[in-house]
Amino acid sequence: MAATGAGASGPPAETVAAAFRRVYDTLKAELLRDPCFDFNDDATQWLDSMLDYNVLGGKLNRGLAVVESYKLLKAASGTEPNEEELFLACILGWGIEWLQAYFLILDDIMGNSQTRRGKPCWYRLPKVGLIAINDGLVLRSQISRIFRRYIYGKSYYVDLVDLFNEVEFQTTSGQLLDQIATNEGRKDLSKYNIQVYCGIQDSLLFILFAAKHFLPYKVACALLLFGESLDNYGQVKRILVEMGVYFQSQDDYLDCFGEQEVIGKIGSDIEDFKCSWLFVQALERADEKQKGVLFENYGKSDPACVAIVKDLYNELDLQWVFSEYERESYENLISAIEAQPNEAVRSVLKSFLHKIYKRRK
Amino acid sequence: MAATGAGASGPPAETVAAAFRRVYDTLKAELLRDPCFDFNDDATQWLDSMLDYNVLGGKLNRGLAVVESYKLLKAASGTEPNEEELFLACILGWGIEWLQAYFLILDDIMGNSQTRRGKPCWYRLPKVGLIAINDGLVLRSQISRIFRRYIYGKSYYVDLVDLFNEVEFQTTSGQLLDQIATNEGRKDLSKYNIQVYCGIQDSLLFILFAAKHFLPYKVACALLLFGESLDNYGQVKRILVEMGVYFQSQDDYLDCFGEQEVIGKIGSDIEDFKCSWLFVQALERADEKQKGVLFENYGKSDPACVAIVKDLYNELDLQWVFSEYERESYENLISAIEAQPNEAVRSVLKSFLHKIYKRRK
Repeated sequence: MAATGAGASGPPAETVAAAFRRVYDTLKAELLRDPCFDFNDDATQWLDSMLDYNVLGGKLNRGLAVVESYKLLKAASGTEPNEEELFLACILGWGIEWLQAYFLILDDIMGNSQTRRGKPCWYRLPKVGLIAINDGLVLRSQISRIFRRYIYGKSYYVDLVDLFNEVEFQTTSGQLLDQIATNEGRKDLSKYNIQVYCGIQDSLLFILFAAKHFLPYKVACALLLFGESLDNYGQVKRILVEMGVYFQSQDDYLDCFGEQEVIGKIGSDIEDFKCSWLFVQALERADEKQKGVLFENYGKSDPACVAIVKDLYNELDLQWVFSEYERESYENLISAIEAQPNEAVRSVLKSFLHKIYKRRK
Repeated sequence: MAATGAGASGPPAETVAAAFRRVYDTLKAELLRDPCFDFNDDATQWLDSMLDYNVLGGKLNRGLAVVESYKLLKAASGTEPNEEELFLACILGWGIEWLQAYFLILDDIMGNSQTRRGKPCWYRLPKVGLIAINDGLVLRSQISRIFRRYIYGKSYYVDLVDLFNEVEFQTTSGQLLDQIATNEGRKDLSKYNIQVYCGIQDSLLFILFAAKHFLPYKVACALLLFGESLDNYGQVKRILVEMGVYFQSQDDYLDCFGEQEVIGKIGSDIEDFKCSWLFVQALERADEKQKGVLFENYGKSDPACVAIVKDLYNELDLQWVFSEYERESYENLISAIEAQPNEAVRSVLKSFLHKIYKRRK
């Protein structure tokens, strides 16, 4: 998987990760002593631990991928990023990590979730509670602070701010559709079909819903930094959307069949009435009797009902259905990527695909 | 109060309000059929009623003030806004109304509020619940959509986007301080003093906390539209901050002594342990015995405790203290405004001051 590594003459991957992590410390220190706001000691401490808990809580893959893909794009054009460029790529990467942390905090409250990334959700901490809502908004506004400080004056500043706004628009609109579909599903489960599913997915466009969907977006950031206009990559966008649907279906699959310790959360799509890839597939394959069982037990928090749904998923062989779907998706995506004329874009897309293919978390 | 009216040769105030209202219909229609997102019928209906309930729920004073102050600024320079300029002023005005609706929705959830503007809070509606969090974010992202559509390409686009980001930063930071002060207050009420109070206020800068504090911000918008750089109005900013502190103290006063039917909500600062202007004043004036009573009864939801605190406020004659403070603030503000060299700025500031002076809601 050579495409996922650092550029041939660049520093080794550990160093990139370490450099990325160091930029976090710089950003945090600056935010804590923002000259435009007089945070007292209590507030500074709060911000400090809130940032560490939420922004650093994940694997940082999304943010790092910006840096890596930028290096790949540079390498494909025969150059290497200089120190300043690398720093700016880290800034964009952290922007995505901040955005993700913001969505996750609020998502967890709306979804009444218990755990996230193997820890209690932020709002579940006794000292936090619904203050977490404001913490989410603080994270969002910090992105603007960071970009304002480091990107303002660059030719792509407006595009970058617009891109983050666009991502927010797509994500919240997708969330809205998801919530309403869940409400409607409560009334009439037969409304869940692949069109609704793809409708929700389609809404996710180049970042896709919330935490999980930053792949396409990362490329957009890398391209922006590389000086490509966002308008010129319609085909890439289509590939990214397909990759996003595939990524989401993996999420849905892992929610049910993944290992709790590996994915770092307790799956609850069945309890939560989610219009999940698995449910849609089950509905397509179920006979009338099985549909009855599904409708009777889906969306109930009773563990016995959840077990019945999972048994039915197994009866319908959905693990096999998924692995077939996974293989087909991979093949289709590889063909589409190979058809791309730009070598750098091909290598970035392939590196992403290889990162998510057959992922188990 | 001539300064608050429309420009001499402009259309009468009713027409401005009606035109402003018509722009809302245009904006809403466009957001519901946004070409970048495929909202289904359910989602369109949801957005429609969510917008009407939250964005139209208030008096629209803040948004209208942008239009009015812009007209005043134009009039002072001997001209009138043309149709397009007036439309753009309405767009900025609605941006503020949207922002306010966004803050209020989330504020009400965090504050566990019951009513807002004489109706149940949005999240209190049975069909809504915590989906309201996402609705808040949808409103925020719609502001970006609106500005992107109408202001993109104008010289002040970046400034405007930055201004809204700045307001969000100041508001969420202020909210953070407020929440932490409330937490700390729970442990040690004597921490509530006028420094903490002004610390919270100072954070509000040119918009001030959440719903209530859009005065300064409106001027910033009007100045932007008028082509003035934000950097050149440091003194105006100071006046606006002072006006904001005064405005906030009115809010705190009305929370306790206002009429529920007039202010449209049930005050709960005492129950909520708020670092309120009244509490700070009471603490400054109370003897040791009275302090004991205050510490024992402040921040409790028991109506008997609330009544004891209110009785103490009356014993300390806080209604009189407030009216004295109100008179002094007014006089100081008028002097500061009169010292402003720019006639247009003077008239805008005076019109704002007269709108809030001795307000009862």
